Amino acid sequence: MSKISENNLETTNSRRDFFKKTAVYSVSAITAAAVLAPAKLLADDENIIHHVKWGTTLGDELNKYPYGIPSKYEHNVVRRTSSLMSSAGDMHAAVSMSPLHELEGIITPNGLHFTRTHNGVAHIDPNKFRLMIHGLVDKPIVLTLDELKQYPSESRILFLECPANGAAEWKGPQFNSLQFVKGMMSNSEWTGVRLSVILDDLGIKPTAKWMLAEGSDGSEMSRTIPVEKVLDDAMIVWAQNGEALRPEQGYPVRLMLPGWEANLCIKWLKRLEFGAEPWYCKEETSKYTVLTKSGKAIQHFYPLETNSIITSPCPEKPWKNLKVGQMIEIEGLAWSGHGTITNVDVSIDGGQNYKEAQLKGLVLPKSWTRFSYMHKYDGKPLLLQSRSVDDSGNVQPTVTQEKGIIGVEGVYHRNSIVTWEVRADNSVHNVQVRTDNCPS
Amino acid sequence: MSKISENNLETTNSRRDFFKKTAVYSVSAITAAAVLAPAKLLADDENIIHHVKWGTTLGDELNKYPYGIPSKYEHNVVRRTSSLMSSAGDMHAAVSMSPLHELEGIITPNGLHFTRTHNGVAHIDPNKFRLMIHGLVDKPIVLTLDELKQYPSESRILFLECPANGAAEWKGPQFNSLQFVKGMMSNSEWTGVRLSVILDDLGIKPTAKWMLAEGSDGSEMSRTIPVEKVLDDAMIVWAQNGEALRPEQGYPVRLMLPGWEANLCIKWLKRLEFGAEPWYCKEETSKYTVLTKSGKAIQHFYPLETNSIITSPCPEKPWKNLKVGQMIEIEGLAWSGHGTITNVDVSIDGGQNYKEAQLKGLVLPKSWTRFSYMHKYDGKPLLLQSRSVDDSGNVQPTVTQEKGIIGVEGVYHRNSIVTWEVRADNSVHNVQVRTDNCPS
Repeated sequence: MSKISENNLETTNSRRDFFKKTAVYSVSAITAAAVLAPAKLLADDENIIHHVKWGTTLGDELNKYPYGIPSKYEHNVVRRTSSLMSSAGDMHAAVSMSPLHELEGIITPNGLHFTRTHNGVAHIDPNKFRLMIHGLVDKPIVLTLDELKQYPSESRILFLECPANGAAEWKGPQFNSLQFVKGMMSNSEWTGVRLSVILDDLGIKPTAKWMLAEGSDGSEMSRTIPVEKVLDDAMIVWAQNGEALRPEQGYPVRLMLPGWEANLCIKWLKRLEFGAEPWYCKEETSKYTVLTKSGKAIQHFYPLETNSIITSPCPEKPWKNLKVGQMIEIEGLAWSGHGTITNVDVSIDGGQNYKEAQLKGLVLPKSWTRFSYMHKYDGKPLLLQSRSVDDSGNVQPTVTQEKGIIGVEGVYHRNSIVTWEVRADNSVHNVQVRTDNCPS
Repeated sequence: MSKISENNLETTNSRRDFFKKTAVYSVSAITAAAVLAPAKLLADDENIIHHVKWGTTLGDELNKYPYGIPSKYEHNVVRRTSSLMSSAGDMHAAVSMSPLHELEGIITPNGLHFTRTHNGVAHIDPNKFRLMIHGLVDKPIVLTLDELKQYPSESRILFLECPANGAAEWKGPQFNSLQFVKGMMSNSEWTGVRLSVILDDLGIKPTAKWMLAEGSDGSEMSRTIPVEKVLDDAMIVWAQNGEALRPEQGYPVRLMLPGWEANLCIKWLKRLEFGAEPWYCKEETSKYTVLTKSGKAIQHFYPLETNSIITSPCPEKPWKNLKVGQMIEIEGLAWSGHGTITNVDVSIDGGQNYKEAQLKGLVLPKSWTRFSYMHKYDGKPLLLQSRSVDDSGNVQPTVTQEKGIIGVEGVYHRNSIVTWEVRADNSVHNVQVRTDNCPS
């Protein structure tokens, strides 16, 4: 056995040890499963002959793409957009969703990262970029991009999720599509500087309790952040998956608040101001609040909830050509803005029974975590569900439980369990299953 | 303190515990360093006024790029190519190098991953793709791409390096460029299936000691792999950083041999054959062997060596506008095909004295690892070096030590310490420093 799996065979109970255990690669279902290969043995297959002919062709010269692009055969693997403006078709206030059904592992390639814009994608000249940090600090400052990058850098793999991810589904299934149900999220390696490092230099006054972050896009998108989060793990990032941020991700820099609502992570960042009170910006009063049954709204509701979704099979990616008795992998993503995923359970009967899935690959805090459950295909219809738990003890709720928390009109912070119905023909459908018999 | 850094404050000595410690995020130099910010305080800066004006502009509509591309301001961040054919300028047998000086963190975006082709970039129709596995197996088989992907998948972050990386430098510094000195390597998250999982199904005969891997590109690139490596951690991968392999990386599938020479990781894979003896293909006899002083050649010389390089500063990325007394980060990459990097030392005086750098971010086996060393800038010239050690006890050699191992004409597996000279004007130059006074 490799060191990786050897390490994971240990079990301990303390939280510190748990963290150590989960932060290495987890053992996937691979070694445990008895996989039956498709029984297509070697024969005079005309496709082989065709296949071997490829070796006679001269390929493209290597300097054709100084910056590479995907294969022409992958032209359908794209972000898909939805306008959020009253003038249908206008894509300035809009959202584009990641094709989760086509993604593997935990890194989202930059070209497929979901995006939400409030007034279009800004294009900022990095030579003219300035970041102003002022308000309740001892030494207010204006930084150029070069000056900002002189601070020591840090890289973390983190998810970003729009708090309205899945919003349209709050009245029940609307889209027969993983991309449209959960595609307002992605996961990348982000590089930048911790704000606490900069504030060590500038000095933050004791009266500073809130930070305003303001973007330089057409909407001057702005939000207010509690200073505890700023000093904990907030970053100003300039790179995503190794390269400069893309324009739609806030080039040249954006704010990054690990685990918190993506809309707080202001793009095209130009100004940070420290103050004693929240600013109550438009985007934290008229929007991004949650109206509860009592008539009161939840504000300052920042971390994304414990969540999970099955990505294979899914409506866009049904199983094909399975044989009865074949072992097949049910796979998905789990994530929590509160911390690290500790386990995921999978149900094949709409939530009546759950069995523990295996976490696989890197299990990191505030990052997508892949889970895997091996299923022996028997040709029968299924009602697939996944339910995640994080290291703060949060458990992903059912639809009914969720309505009790965020109200019947809650469109933000939706994290209830999603059900995929797998029919006998293997087509997959987005359905709602009520197992807890509560009124809606 | 976060859980991340709390965890890393522990020190233990056993190898198993060491692995646990390093596999989580390491503490960077950030918290330890007293960083002096550039002392440009807030004032009537005309740039601020200019900057604020950005907020008035409507940006691009979001559906402009279903698949996103970099900012126009990043047009110089590209792979750079070198022809390896006698007909100058022909780029079918060629190499393209990653712009390491522009990369952050440990993920290389797919568009910037280095590439080596022997007969151009092949374009394989995934619907016509077949993988034949035959020879000394109980059940020879031909798999379609869908059938291959039905196996349970696994994702790992791994480096790929051409064994000829830095080859041109074996006679001494040739290029004043990090990209041309070390750019034949990259690091990505790869997803596919372990070959051991497939072979569990097919059954491998006890007489099988070697595996031939053959590509379907114009050169029918082929190499022979010992079966121990195949059964240990070899993978057939179909995704890189979350999406389908790029054409130049072997779309739709390539072989992945973690830590071993990239040229063994056959692209556009079409055939795997198991046999009792090595095949001694052209590319493992006339090339990719190392002639030693004795006149004998080293064959079957597969894992990449323990290595490191300083990426900031470097010839393409000198320090700018530093003030004497300012703390500045010396940063670089370390990697080893034998396992996990355990430490990196940095010298500012050409190897006379070394001090321990800090590893930062994820420290994973057979993956790039970032290191960081905080330096108090005093305006004096420097001779910067880095030296890495891995968990098998391998230490990166000096130039002279390396010549003793791979001979005076050795162009493969070069891993000797590189020296960057930082002059008083902060320009950076590729130089060779001999500190060990041995004959060449």
